[in-house]
Amino acid sequence: MSDRYKYLLPEKDLPKAWYNINPDMPVNPAETAWNAVLHPGTKEPVTPDFLSVLFPMRFIGEAISMDRWVEIPEPVREIYKLWRPSPLYRARRLEKALDTPAHIYYKYEGVSPVGSHKPNTAIAQAFYAKEEGVVGFTTETGAGQWGSAMSMACNLFDLECHVYMVKVSFYQKPYRRILIESYGASVTPSPSDKTQYGRKVLAEDPDTPGSLGIAISEAVEAAVTSNGKYKYSLGSVLGPVLMHQTVIGLEALKQFEMAGEYPDIIIGCAGGGSNFAGFAFPFLHENFTNGQNTRVIAVEPTACPTLTKGEYTFDYGDTAAMAPVVKMHTLGHTFVPPGIHAGGLRYHGMAPHVSALLDNGDIEAVAVHQIPTFEAAVQFARAEGIIPAPESAHAIKVAMDEAIKCKEEGVSKVIAFNLSGHGHFDLGAYDAYFQGQLEDYAYAEDKVKEAMTHLPEVNLG
Amino acid sequence: MSDRYKYLLPEKDLPKAWYNINPDMPVNPAETAWNAVLHPGTKEPVTPDFLSVLFPMRFIGEAISMDRWVEIPEPVREIYKLWRPSPLYRARRLEKALDTPAHIYYKYEGVSPVGSHKPNTAIAQAFYAKEEGVVGFTTETGAGQWGSAMSMACNLFDLECHVYMVKVSFYQKPYRRILIESYGASVTPSPSDKTQYGRKVLAEDPDTPGSLGIAISEAVEAAVTSNGKYKYSLGSVLGPVLMHQTVIGLEALKQFEMAGEYPDIIIGCAGGGSNFAGFAFPFLHENFTNGQNTRVIAVEPTACPTLTKGEYTFDYGDTAAMAPVVKMHTLGHTFVPPGIHAGGLRYHGMAPHVSALLDNGDIEAVAVHQIPTFEAAVQFARAEGIIPAPESAHAIKVAMDEAIKCKEEGVSKVIAFNLSGHGHFDLGAYDAYFQGQLEDYAYAEDKVKEAMTHLPEVNLG
Repeated sequence: MSDRYKYLLPEKDLPKAWYNINPDMPVNPAETAWNAVLHPGTKEPVTPDFLSVLFPMRFIGEAISMDRWVEIPEPVREIYKLWRPSPLYRARRLEKALDTPAHIYYKYEGVSPVGSHKPNTAIAQAFYAKEEGVVGFTTETGAGQWGSAMSMACNLFDLECHVYMVKVSFYQKPYRRILIESYGASVTPSPSDKTQYGRKVLAEDPDTPGSLGIAISEAVEAAVTSNGKYKYSLGSVLGPVLMHQTVIGLEALKQFEMAGEYPDIIIGCAGGGSNFAGFAFPFLHENFTNGQNTRVIAVEPTACPTLTKGEYTFDYGDTAAMAPVVKMHTLGHTFVPPGIHAGGLRYHGMAPHVSALLDNGDIEAVAVHQIPTFEAAVQFARAEGIIPAPESAHAIKVAMDEAIKCKEEGVSKVIAFNLSGHGHFDLGAYDAYFQGQLEDYAYAEDKVKEAMTHLPEVNLG
Repeated sequence: MSDRYKYLLPEKDLPKAWYNINPDMPVNPAETAWNAVLHPGTKEPVTPDFLSVLFPMRFIGEAISMDRWVEIPEPVREIYKLWRPSPLYRARRLEKALDTPAHIYYKYEGVSPVGSHKPNTAIAQAFYAKEEGVVGFTTETGAGQWGSAMSMACNLFDLECHVYMVKVSFYQKPYRRILIESYGASVTPSPSDKTQYGRKVLAEDPDTPGSLGIAISEAVEAAVTSNGKYKYSLGSVLGPVLMHQTVIGLEALKQFEMAGEYPDIIIGCAGGGSNFAGFAFPFLHENFTNGQNTRVIAVEPTACPTLTKGEYTFDYGDTAAMAPVVKMHTLGHTFVPPGIHAGGLRYHGMAPHVSALLDNGDIEAVAVHQIPTFEAAVQFARAEGIIPAPESAHAIKVAMDEAIKCKEEGVSKVIAFNLSGHGHFDLGAYDAYFQGQLEDYAYAEDKVKEAMTHLPEVNLG
């Protein structure tokens, strides 16, 4: 056993390929790739042609690829090197604070310039668009994490970036907005009068605070009506996005080799599913092909319990029913989760890959409440120094619960979680917690039941 | 020449000793150690006994030590390991953007949990106090960087921490305040009714926004009147503080060995002088003893040009003339610098060591304006991804100027600067810059002249 706190992988060991889970999926890959993505109008499988209006062709190709290893393009790797490989930490001080025989590790993605894992895919998407000669991207952002990642990525490839930011966040989270602008992107509070859909929403309700669903619709419309000038980018849910994030887990595998240990339990928080998948899928690959038997746990908020309470069925990807229909765990696309501070976990659905793996029993899911999650986050911060993002705190909470179980049962396990981002832009949430102003939202069963009556009618013959 | 972007030193190469420049000072060390520190009342050299009310004895011992290498205590090294060794970056994308033959490197201290170099000394000071069995610390903070470092350090050693935060910052920079509270410290807006001095100031002007000078006076009073319960801690200026920061430069020396290059120019921003000294002193040691001839440049704001315009003479360390008198470059302790966004560089004086080295010609000093500094910061951020703290941007500005000179002269030099912190809590300043609302304060010669009439009368016989 090593004495080290950090396992720093040399730059030369930065992975050369992403792990594509498609060929290893325990279900018909058609259900998780584009051919099970249905047009929101016709409910027929969409074609690459239809999608190419929105996404770069190389991105679409990745979605249907059955190659287990997909080369990371050299220009993408070069930018990764600005902060990657990210460190794997042994949380020795947290172990001591919990007085647990467990070994707790965390992979820290907060070292990226925007403070989260999001650039791992933003960089790739920007590179693909640059290759295809487009002018830039449109995208949406809720709390601002994805917007800042995409803005930085576009800047590095000399692309324009136009971000539709949910209006209430635009005004309440000025720091995220300024961060996005610092990299040169334009930020528009959504709904706006720049799009037909935005004007329609504003006409109906001029004072609407906006929503992620509305912002997605505006960004999609802006790309679709640009005559190929702009592509649209999404920061989670889709297969290629999950794949780009696997650089996290692939690095971690090598770092565990350096540490001379192998994780018994792998934990990640799951909103759309991308940081969870990016960390966990390479370990699942070891389970599938190398005889490992690691438990893999996705953690979600009780307030938006997609995996633990949602149904595995076809639903729209967005609130406005304008995005494609996919098979996933969903609470119903019209379900509006309460205003928990982990904004990145407020999604009614879940990545189709993650959903299918849960359905097949390859992974587990746990839901945790907001207040104990912040409690865990503060205990972690006081032991390890790092203030976690509220989303990542969900993974911390379950890692600590598992470590305490180890103590109770007198067994030493190796527990690893993905610390997907820092909380420097979320300190308002911590303040609310310290002031005792956080709510511990329960599962809104009635609202979900109502939302589930609005599922699309799908007939796959 | 290596192809790498980052030079990551393994944990085992974390320095085991700090570099104490006292024995290598080109002037009588008495002038830079405690024995040239004068009591603010009597103007006589202070005694260790007098100082021990304020500082831990081990800290005082370091100030007068003539040992070139001072062992870093193991419990301090253990906490350093949470984020140290910090990375040395080759700024390849910035070099490309500037089209310069120069090789630009930066040491990045923003990886610490609070985002700056400040914990390097906060951890040591907290450990010394813990050794001596005190209950905790009082300290002051302006913009909040030092307060968050001290709060984290105290928490890690189970010490109380009471921070007096300049009132205007307390309300204008809630994120820094919350960060301090997250680690468990109490934060009091200063002036407060907790101290005699605070009550006096409030009686005279109930609506005062406060100042760093007032906050220092309150923190000092709270420690002095605590019957040994609390010590007082300072985040810059003093010899031991500079010494604790040398871990930065010592790591950098080893990292340049990995890179197979040696810097021709070393650059740091200088407010009180601690991040500059921490980065530069180990390279000065190479100049003094190993025949190196590296240029060492301290960068300050034109608005507060202590080194480039100040006089090298005896002055009070604080505005209220309650702190000891030391020989340093000063603009006069009553000089109030304009409200530049680099709050950490708004100090009327300078570390005595740094002052003496400038006086002796061992280092150079340059002053830069606010707006071109932000311009450089944004260009750096768009090339390298990292948003720098406004203080650190001063070093970036001069590094870029030197790199452009290299291009003009057709010579390739190795230029290295200390990126002492990130700007996540300073995005309001960037917003002001983007909105064209920044002022380019000139040197206020008249105000400095007036302030210089208030120097203490010192008669060292």
